[in-house]
Amino acid sequence: MAREFFQVRTVAEALAAFDVGPPVGTERVALATALGRVPASAIAAPHDLPGFARATVDGFAVRAADTFGASEGLPAYLDVAGAVHMGAAADVALPRGGAVAVPTGGALPAGADAVVMVEHTAETMPGTIEVVRPAAPGDGLVAADEDVAAGAPLVPAGRPLRAHDLGLLAAAGVVELEVRARPRVAILSTGDEVVPPATAELAPGQVRDATATALAALVAGAGGTPDLRGIVADDAAALAEALAAAVAAADLVVVSAGSSVGARDATAEAIAALGEPGILCHGLAIRPGKPTILAAAGTVPVLGLPGNPLSALVVFRLVGLPVLRRLAGVERAPEPPRRRAVLARDVPSAVGRLDVVQVRLEGDVAVPLFGKSALLSILAAADGFVCVAEPDAGLLAGAEVEVELYA
Amino acid sequence: MAREFFQVRTVAEALAAFDVGPPVGTERVALATALGRVPASAIAAPHDLPGFARATVDGFAVRAADTFGASEGLPAYLDVAGAVHMGAAADVALPRGGAVAVPTGGALPAGADAVVMVEHTAETMPGTIEVVRPAAPGDGLVAADEDVAAGAPLVPAGRPLRAHDLGLLAAAGVVELEVRARPRVAILSTGDEVVPPATAELAPGQVRDATATALAALVAGAGGTPDLRGIVADDAAALAEALAAAVAAADLVVVSAGSSVGARDATAEAIAALGEPGILCHGLAIRPGKPTILAAAGTVPVLGLPGNPLSALVVFRLVGLPVLRRLAGVERAPEPPRRRAVLARDVPSAVGRLDVVQVRLEGDVAVPLFGKSALLSILAAADGFVCVAEPDAGLLAGAEVEVELYA
Repeated sequence: MAREFFQVRTVAEALAAFDVGPPVGTERVALATALGRVPASAIAAPHDLPGFARATVDGFAVRAADTFGASEGLPAYLDVAGAVHMGAAADVALPRGGAVAVPTGGALPAGADAVVMVEHTAETMPGTIEVVRPAAPGDGLVAADEDVAAGAPLVPAGRPLRAHDLGLLAAAGVVELEVRARPRVAILSTGDEVVPPATAELAPGQVRDATATALAALVAGAGGTPDLRGIVADDAAALAEALAAAVAAADLVVVSAGSSVGARDATAEAIAALGEPGILCHGLAIRPGKPTILAAAGTVPVLGLPGNPLSALVVFRLVGLPVLRRLAGVERAPEPPRRRAVLARDVPSAVGRLDVVQVRLEGDVAVPLFGKSALLSILAAADGFVCVAEPDAGLLAGAEVEVELYA
Repeated sequence: MAREFFQVRTVAEALAAFDVGPPVGTERVALATALGRVPASAIAAPHDLPGFARATVDGFAVRAADTFGASEGLPAYLDVAGAVHMGAAADVALPRGGAVAVPTGGALPAGADAVVMVEHTAETMPGTIEVVRPAAPGDGLVAADEDVAAGAPLVPAGRPLRAHDLGLLAAAGVVELEVRARPRVAILSTGDEVVPPATAELAPGQVRDATATALAALVAGAGGTPDLRGIVADDAAALAEALAAAVAAADLVVVSAGSSVGARDATAEAIAALGEPGILCHGLAIRPGKPTILAAAGTVPVLGLPGNPLSALVVFRLVGLPVLRRLAGVERAPEPPRRRAVLARDVPSAVGRLDVVQVRLEGDVAVPLFGKSALLSILAAADGFVCVAEPDAGLLAGAEVEVELYA
């Protein structure tokens, strides 16, 4: 058991040591399925957008120079040479001293360099308009390359695609694109006491596997593909075989160890036996979650989580998700929602350890939910959590804290 | 066109007027697919959790009274009556003056009311341990109903399920559950200039439909099922038919009007003709997004969005998503990520109007991205947006603002 208490690292040190593999490869996906996917490289506009000079107001396409000096008292008189129809090229060119009616979004006729809003005109005689305000070149329109020029990036590499990014790609006709594959995350559970969630009746001493289901949801939510590999008995050979198979199949392996000392030791030994570089860190300076193992088999990171579900989920959120995002090629992770709140009571901690305290929010007050780390219900009751950083010996009631909210 | 300028409402007034229908019905889903789904009623624990008194440390199950007064100098001596194995009932009862070895997570034997940590014991003679610290009843264990008692709620109604909620449900054996159906959101585009995103070569004057793709992603991200119903020509009969079919098939109908005055008027008329209660609001006190229509056909809300994609997406985020969440039975919407920042330059606004300003973040500085609202690239370049509320005439450079971040 002493093994758990050496090589204890801070979460930041552990994450740095855990940077073992390159991001996963890429795949082509349809635009409609690309929300949250991560482009491996910037995607360039295949042509100018919008691609033609377009009116942004309902009005008249003009030569701006023909309106210079126009006012209510001395309007410019322009002959209406025709009208532009939506979705079609202008079928008239703009004559000198003329105007062409154009709706918002319509294509400007050749020769026009501005659009006068209809509100600044009057049609006093059929076929002639009065313009009562001068227009400057570029007024009332977007240029052919003003949204995005051909070759310029539509979306950057390394940032998960957002809904409006998909809109811009659609505008450019990019209906299929190259993105990082979803990292495959193998999820194994161990422990002789652990049975599948679908077990209707528990025998005495048995508990259902809560961790794997929650981990799978965290993985899916962060853009990975969970691969639930079931429950392995506390048996060295079975564990070794299951871990080796997981490493061969996955980009990241997560094992939630059984809670007993025997299961923990067996899991640690099986992880150590996976090969180089082996165990990088055994024991994290975090509460809950100290008995965490960070290891790697070749370039595949292997994360050994504590046996109790609350601790396992706290550690996976703080250590597993950053690794998953790195594998997914995310260079700028989306920020989680946070809220400033005032702590309702003292939170003790220890210098050198990161404490993760679940809290319920009552307005702007964060109420710490203390309790045994074996109680998963604390997480379900929490609105978010507060971290007490390594240098702090605790936080006092009344302190202003930043609560990371569960989305 | 005057129609667009009456009945202008604030966003809050519009949302209140737009509260037309009840939430959608429910469906049963598998636990593994339930992330983000919304329980229509609280889900109760079918039995106590964990269901048996469980050790939370590796050690010895004891009667606490047998350890009272124990110290390093005067240990309590207890006879080891046996050992508990993981995943099985204790096969020995605890005799008076005895102890039973129990691993973390193991079931306590009958008669035990505390677990002494192995670190507080020494096995000086085979079969006997010395306990050097007294245990209080309840130490080192969780009671059978301490996580959740039978009948108590595992998860509340109206809150989208989070990863760890799924874990707690798994622990309770709830592998299928009743949740709100995903609201079906019909998405129609109009405009003679608008062509599908897959159009490889644009004819002059044509633009690809950017809005529908982005709306579909926003809908899916917020828990709805997008129903892309394609592009309808600026033709009264076609529009009326497409809208009626959408209303019959959907829980929420979203139409992005063509940008031309003709398309806008035709869309407004078709929406008005859908039947009672008809148009609730024509024109929102928001920029961009003023030419928005809120209507209802029976209990189906119909949202008419502005023709340009940026405006349409701004309005859908602020007006459409809250309506979608209400239909989805969400009583407590997850908070979006936000960050405090300092405004890099003045942002003009008008009293009585909500201004939505896209910003790029440079550290803690928010740089407003001004530009024509016809430019979708502004959204892609933005990290989030700042709202200038109705009572404000603008914000000054240096003001501290809250940026809502795009996730």
